[in-house]
Amino acid sequence: MMTLKLLLCVILVSICSVFKVSCGRYDPTWWSLDTRPLPIWYDRAKIGIFVHWGVFSVPSVYSEWFWADWKSDEDVDIKEYMQKNFPPNFTYQEFAKDFTAEFFNATQWADLFARAGAKYVVLTSKHHEGFTLWPSKYSFGWNAQDIGPHRDIVDELGTAVRDANMTFGLYHSLYEWFNPLYLADKANNYTTQDFVMNKILPEMRELVENYKPSVLWSDGDWEANETYWNSTEFIAWLYNDSPVQEEIVVNDRWGSSIPCHHGDFYTCSDRYDPGILQNHKWENAMTIDKKSWGFRRNAVLDDYLTPTELITTLARTVSCGGNLLINVGPTKEGIINPIFEERLTQLGDWLSINGEAIYETVPWLVQNDTYNGNVWYTSSPSYGGNYLYAIILEWPRNDILTLQSPRQIFEMSVNSVAKLLGNGDTKLKWALTKDHVEIRLPSKATVQNPIAWVLKIIPG
Amino acid sequence: MMTLKLLLCVILVSICSVFKVSCGRYDPTWWSLDTRPLPIWYDRAKIGIFVHWGVFSVPSVYSEWFWADWKSDEDVDIKEYMQKNFPPNFTYQEFAKDFTAEFFNATQWADLFARAGAKYVVLTSKHHEGFTLWPSKYSFGWNAQDIGPHRDIVDELGTAVRDANMTFGLYHSLYEWFNPLYLADKANNYTTQDFVMNKILPEMRELVENYKPSVLWSDGDWEANETYWNSTEFIAWLYNDSPVQEEIVVNDRWGSSIPCHHGDFYTCSDRYDPGILQNHKWENAMTIDKKSWGFRRNAVLDDYLTPTELITTLARTVSCGGNLLINVGPTKEGIINPIFEERLTQLGDWLSINGEAIYETVPWLVQNDTYNGNVWYTSSPSYGGNYLYAIILEWPRNDILTLQSPRQIFEMSVNSVAKLLGNGDTKLKWALTKDHVEIRLPSKATVQNPIAWVLKIIPG
Amino acid sequence: MMTLKLLLCVILVSICSVFKVSCGRYDPTWWSLDTRPLPIWYDRAKIGIFVHWGVFSVPSVYSEWFWADWKSDEDVDIKEYMQKNFPPNFTYQEFAKDFTAEFFNATQWADLFARAGAKYVVLTSKHHEGFTLWPSKYSFGWNAQDIGPHRDIVDELGTAVRDANMTFGLYHSLYEWFNPLYLADKANNYTTQDFVMNKILPEMRELVENYKPSVLWSDGDWEANETYWNSTEFIAWLYNDSPVQEEIVVNDRWGSSIPCHHGDFYTCSDRYDPGILQNHKWENAMTIDKKSWGFRRNAVLDDYLTPTELITTLARTVSCGGNLLINVGPTKEGIINPIFEERLTQLGDWLSINGEAIYETVPWLVQNDTYNGNVWYTSSPSYGGNYLYAIILEWPRNDILTLQSPRQIFEMSVNSVAKLLGNGDTKLKWALTKDHVEIRLPSKATVQNPIAWVLKIIPG
Amino acid sequence: MMTLKLLLCVILVSICSVFKVSCGRYDPTWWSLDTRPLPIWYDRAKIGIFVHWGVFSVPSVYSEWFWADWKSDEDVDIKEYMQKNFPPNFTYQEFAKDFTAEFFNATQWADLFARAGAKYVVLTSKHHEGFTLWPSKYSFGWNAQDIGPHRDIVDELGTAVRDANMTFGLYHSLYEWFNPLYLADKANNYTTQDFVMNKILPEMRELVENYKPSVLWSDGDWEANETYWNSTEFIAWLYNDSPVQEEIVVNDRWGSSIPCHHGDFYTCSDRYDPGILQNHKWENAMTIDKKSWGFRRNAVLDDYLTPTELITTLARTVSCGGNLLINVGPTKEGIINPIFEERLTQLGDWLSINGEAIYETVPWLVQNDTYNGNVWYTSSPSYGGNYLYAIILEWPRNDILTLQSPRQIFEMSVNSVAKLLGNGDTKLKWALTKDHVEIRLPSKATVQNPIAWVLKIIPG
Repeated sequence: MMTLKLLLCVILVSICSVFKVSCGRYDPTWWSLDTRPLPIWYDRAKIGIFVHWGVFSVPSVYSEWFWADWKSDEDVDIKEYMQKNFPPNFTYQEFAKDFTAEFFNATQWADLFARAGAKYVVLTSKHHEGFTLWPSKYSFGWNAQDIGPHRDIVDELGTAVRDANMTFGLYHSLYEWFNPLYLADKANNYTTQDFVMNKILPEMRELVENYKPSVLWSDGDWEANETYWNSTEFIAWLYNDSPVQEEIVVNDRWGSSIPCHHGDFYTCSDRYDPGILQNHKWENAMTIDKKSWGFRRNAVLDDYLTPTELITTLARTVSCGGNLLINVGPTKEGIINPIFEERLTQLGDWLSINGEAIYETVPWLVQNDTYNGNVWYTSSPSYGGNYLYAIILEWPRNDILTLQSPRQIFEMSVNSVAKLLGNGDTKLKWALTKDHVEIRLPSKATVQNPIAWVLKIIPG
Repeated sequence: MMTLKLLLCVILVSICSVFKVSCGRYDPTWWSLDTRPLPIWYDRAKIGIFVHWGVFSVPSVYSEWFWADWKSDEDVDIKEYMQKNFPPNFTYQEFAKDFTAEFFNATQWADLFARAGAKYVVLTSKHHEGFTLWPSKYSFGWNAQDIGPHRDIVDELGTAVRDANMTFGLYHSLYEWFNPLYLADKANNYTTQDFVMNKILPEMRELVENYKPSVLWSDGDWEANETYWNSTEFIAWLYNDSPVQEEIVVNDRWGSSIPCHHGDFYTCSDRYDPGILQNHKWENAMTIDKKSWGFRRNAVLDDYLTPTELITTLARTVSCGGNLLINVGPTKEGIINPIFEERLTQLGDWLSINGEAIYETVPWLVQNDTYNGNVWYTSSPSYGGNYLYAIILEWPRNDILTLQSPRQIFEMSVNSVAKLLGNGDTKLKWALTKDHVEIRLPSKATVQNPIAWVLKIIPG
Repeated sequence: MMTLKLLLCVILVSICSVFKVSCGRYDPTWWSLDTRPLPIWYDRAKIGIFVHWGVFSVPSVYSEWFWADWKSDEDVDIKEYMQKNFPPNFTYQEFAKDFTAEFFNATQWADLFARAGAKYVVLTSKHHEGFTLWPSKYSFGWNAQDIGPHRDIVDELGTAVRDANMTFGLYHSLYEWFNPLYLADKANNYTTQDFVMNKILPEMRELVENYKPSVLWSDGDWEANETYWNSTEFIAWLYNDSPVQEEIVVNDRWGSSIPCHHGDFYTCSDRYDPGILQNHKWENAMTIDKKSWGFRRNAVLDDYLTPTELITTLARTVSCGGNLLINVGPTKEGIINPIFEERLTQLGDWLSINGEAIYETVPWLVQNDTYNGNVWYTSSPSYGGNYLYAIILEWPRNDILTLQSPRQIFEMSVNSVAKLLGNGDTKLKWALTKDHVEIRLPSKATVQNPIAWVLKIIPG
Repeated sequence: MMTLKLLLCVILVSICSVFKVSCGRYDPTWWSLDTRPLPIWYDRAKIGIFVHWGVFSVPSVYSEWFWADWKSDEDVDIKEYMQKNFPPNFTYQEFAKDFTAEFFNATQWADLFARAGAKYVVLTSKHHEGFTLWPSKYSFGWNAQDIGPHRDIVDELGTAVRDANMTFGLYHSLYEWFNPLYLADKANNYTTQDFVMNKILPEMRELVENYKPSVLWSDGDWEANETYWNSTEFIAWLYNDSPVQEEIVVNDRWGSSIPCHHGDFYTCSDRYDPGILQNHKWENAMTIDKKSWGFRRNAVLDDYLTPTELITTLARTVSCGGNLLINVGPTKEGIINPIFEERLTQLGDWLSINGEAIYETVPWLVQNDTYNGNVWYTSSPSYGGNYLYAIILEWPRNDILTLQSPRQIFEMSVNSVAKLLGNGDTKLKWALTKDHVEIRLPSKATVQNPIAWVLKIIPG
């Protein structure tokens, strides 16, 4: 009997998996959890904004790892910074008072993120420091309501993001560098779970039940395995019983060996940008400030991605099947620095013309043109489908764009049409050579956008 | 069988109770716990110092109830004080940063307390605000190591107190006004115990195991009953298995109906001073600043007990079988104000002459002289025993002290001797009248002490 | 005799004035002072950086007029901001403590300003708040050495600016909003001069003698006339006896009726941009943040000039004979926000190609092309001289630039040559029509710079 | 002619001097100024309260010399204190923000001082730090209105003191440790007077004209001579033309060689207590905290004078013709510590019984009894006059007081009467021996006061 039941189950799950539908409840095993189809909104969204905000935004130097680096033996710079500017026995917790957030206006943030073309926003509800941006029952006195902002940041931003028609997600760190309950479990070689049972699991449930995030972006998992974190049980609850069971997506940071192996989407490592097509949905979580996720008061212009670098990364990522999660770090006052605003606005301007090459696209048969390395492809609506988009990262000197992949993949016919997005309905002239297709672009002076351009090819 | 076993048990416990010895393990019932004999050190000690110190020492106005009173709707004064001196959204937690304790020197404190004649010291390890004066695993970021003093206050004071040959005890509040876990249980009408199970019980074990207090002075019990607090289970552990099972004494604040009914000693209510002999060991926990336990920066001289009031209270308390727990509130910097120092020193000076009428005494057959209300009795070493002490709170105008109780209780014989402590070996002259004994005191000019005097009567 | 002497003097001064040479000493009269020739370095420099930094950089909202606006009855917003974020009796002076300047690195600033193409730098040594950025003897406790930065900002920046081969100047406010000595003089209707005699004149001498500025940029003059300020006496000392008598240039804000009438260069009003040629050397002092001279934490991207607006202003200003003084406001920490850095870098990049159309040029016979309003002219080395520069603010759609003024002013001959700066030695083709000259520009795709372009015409 | 005029003047002045009346105007010479009779109120007052309050009350450790000692090379302790508790570049000026004075209630202070029996109050309007407790025009940003208390302390206390029927005086420091104008004059070996002319003299006039002090208690004179300070000119103005010309008294600290030589009363050195009669009115300015004039947070009980020491000092001082100026140091919050309050109250209680031996008395022919060193004399109303007071600092063991001086000075007759103040009208028995008089005191038990006693002898 048992064997038969198991067999039926295996068959059923396999069918579900193939058809990407959810059938029945999930078991707390990766084998079962991995069968869940990815909620469709996530793949279509393509671009999200990551917001790193917390007490680390008060010292606002070095990075959001300020506390851990300060207390580690290696970082001499931070030690010197602290010695020079603070009394000897100052503690990190005392920064919290200056996390004032007096200019924090969630609607302004959301408007900016929407203007940038983002479809979802992920906020650090709690980073490794343990400070919660919502008034958690499990973090008395170490949360944004009790000290600093005196506000429920998670609620305010969530509401504003949804009002701006974006999807709201939450980052959450499993481990907390200096939480003594965690350190005790760690000292016990993770044979005890006091921290997980009394702090992390109740806290994550509270977070999900109160704020209903559509993304739960887990982090801080690496020092212990999934068994310690009770990861599969928690995710099974998320998928089966939580109020966000339909739309929730989780990443892959749920235990020391899980990244790049399990989860609705993979993040693998920070700024993951493989450059080749992946066989599982993934996300490139990266930063506009190349050196930090949290705001750094002393960052200089060179530390920020140029518009070209940002759009290049977007093109590479989407072309290879990834979503792009672009990080900004607000100041302790709640300001998003104009340099971030400018990059996001530049991105939004570009997307207002070229967005159809990004949103709701799927990877094409080729990602990077085999002849012209400055061109990346996407397609719509399905593999090998109706439209092909060639994202051009460098304008050709002579206005003639030479490509190989379209030539090799499908025979461009007389009915094939090539247009430049943002250039009206003008059909560009093109010609075939033995191995390539040569497309005559319009004069650059007639094209507004100075960063990257999209060629839309309709097979005809 | 069961009946027989129960019968034997009842007999055994009764025997133990009569002989005031501990036999076997205690059950988590008051019926069992109440059989435990009082550790002898406590009754002998007579005088303890109570120290109220915490984040409330930072605002340092009104009282240690500052936070609760501020947030209650009634207290207009505190609201005005805060409005006048702080930004509108300032929170209580933000006071913690200024709990600097830079002058806290545990040895100086202990020396002062010993100088005052105290035999034990009880520190508020955690008051209703929830801030722990030790680095509790269960109070991350809201303890004296993480913020403010950056020190383990409990450890430092405990060590110093013991080095000064006094006994160390800890006050601990069960409830925490604004702990969201507690508020959730309360909202559930105490049908849930998340706060007790995940916070209070682990915290109290941690406290006992790490700091080995000989007194656990519980408080903040009144909103819920003993079942919610798991009080009897915890006390049974204290008596049976804890590292302080031999010497520990607990008070009576373990649930809404427990005070004055169970516990090693009763405190009943603050400043409990019944004026008549009690049939169970008790303690008068009182304050030198009549209006507050925590230090008040704006207290004036009239708010402090005079030396006479202090010694009067001592005499009344010890005479009626109580211990006196005298409270001082240090400043946020760790200073014990000179006015406290003076009162304690005046007490110590008095005790250096008259201590034998206090320490290790027992109540006499009468407490307050039936004729002279300014005289209180103690005796040594046992009820009706060898020495009788009459504590005289007002010097008689004509240097003739008239008493009734010694006359009525025992026949003073020619061998009876009366001396004034601090007056050398001089035997005072006395005479009997029908109802009284009249004792001729020496000239007041020859007696140093200006506050109260002790007549020692040796029956002869 | 007297009459003869006066006559000779008048003649001499007139000669000096005509020949723009200095002869002898200046009298403390505008009649005499106005005869001083402008030191040549200033006209050649063309581009300076203005730095507004002070205690106003601490509140860092609204503008550097924060204090005055707060205390005025009109500004409700600032009042609300203060009420919401500060205790009721907070004073402006208490901001000074937080003027930390911990990241202030004068060399980094100077490198950035040099990179931007600036030839001089003017720092607010003291704004209307009265806080001096140098340790003035006349501002005890209200200067950057005593409180806040704990550094001599004027000295540090002066040294760095000169090390970077730029000229150093100082802004100085005559009046101080809330200086009680000033207010007393004002209440006396400026019939007393206690403030000027005991504070302003000694302070300005100290400033000049210690830091040897080449520009003294006076401000805050408008409430009183030049007699009250003793302006002409002071300037005569500057010209005759000060250590900077050779190179010093002063602006025109020296009394209520002086601006646009006297001084080495005129500033007239803030952001003065007349759009037509002026008959006296002038300066357009303007801001990158359109709304404020001091840094505003809550400024958004739209508040900052775009690169195009900045270069347009530069072209208009230099074409009409002005210098451009571009203001940036550093943060209280000493950071120049990356958005400022970007604008300055964009300017510097543009100047690295097109600088010869700016530096050391003189106005041409025409400023704004009479046909093409997007073109502004400069020339080199002298009026009607060898090279003509046409600064093109908008690329012509068809790559054909049509101009009228060169056609009308001089006959372009076959030997005339037209080049685009940054386009190598390529000679552009041009053709004459009846009223215009039409110049064929190269393809825009071959030109790096996306903002503005310079056509260099060599008469031939 | 001149000689005659001079002669007349000398004669006139000599007459004035002898008769202690003021005649005409004073010249700015000591020779003239010294002729001014002492305003009578001052000698009659006998007891004043000295209040040291300022920014030094914020660090409130070591003493009011904190700043100078910190910056001197010798004081290692303060350096360590600062290093341990403050950021490295913290400056003294930054303490001012925390001089909050939120509990300062001038009426409460005045009531306490009156209760202590004081007849005048002297406040440190400005100590060596230069911070003025009034909004001085000459101390912009470094005064109690601009920063810290945000109040006019001088005005508030002056009003309250006068309302309580006491006389109001002001302490004022001539030098300011770190005022750069002073340091410049000092560097010039006091050949320049910029500091005196532009700061000190206008400031002192402002102080006198606005607050009309009856005492101007000068200090900080010692580094330069009277010529530098312009002392005689200023005092001549005070005596001749100031609004307080009638009642003003000044002390003797007006130049390096002036103390103990010129001034209405001499202070000579701090805590001046010569123990013998002086031939010029003098004042013993002393402190209840033996180690500091400013409040020290870490002072302990032993640092404070006992009531006995305080009354002993009073007896010695008044007996020898001095006034006693008793210093208290309030906290930065405006609190007078209860230990000060207790000492002042104890003094007041003593004076309420024994005041007639103090106020309005004059020295007797002998000060300290030649036989009994514990007895000091005063008399009333004039030398050798009607009443003789013997202040007894130690109660004689056998209640028999033996004195020598009254026996030797005047023949006690049968009509002579001796009473103990506070003992009603009881005439004490006395007997003469060859060299002494022996007075039988009442039983000490009948006398309330435990500190010192006054025997009033009426010659008869």
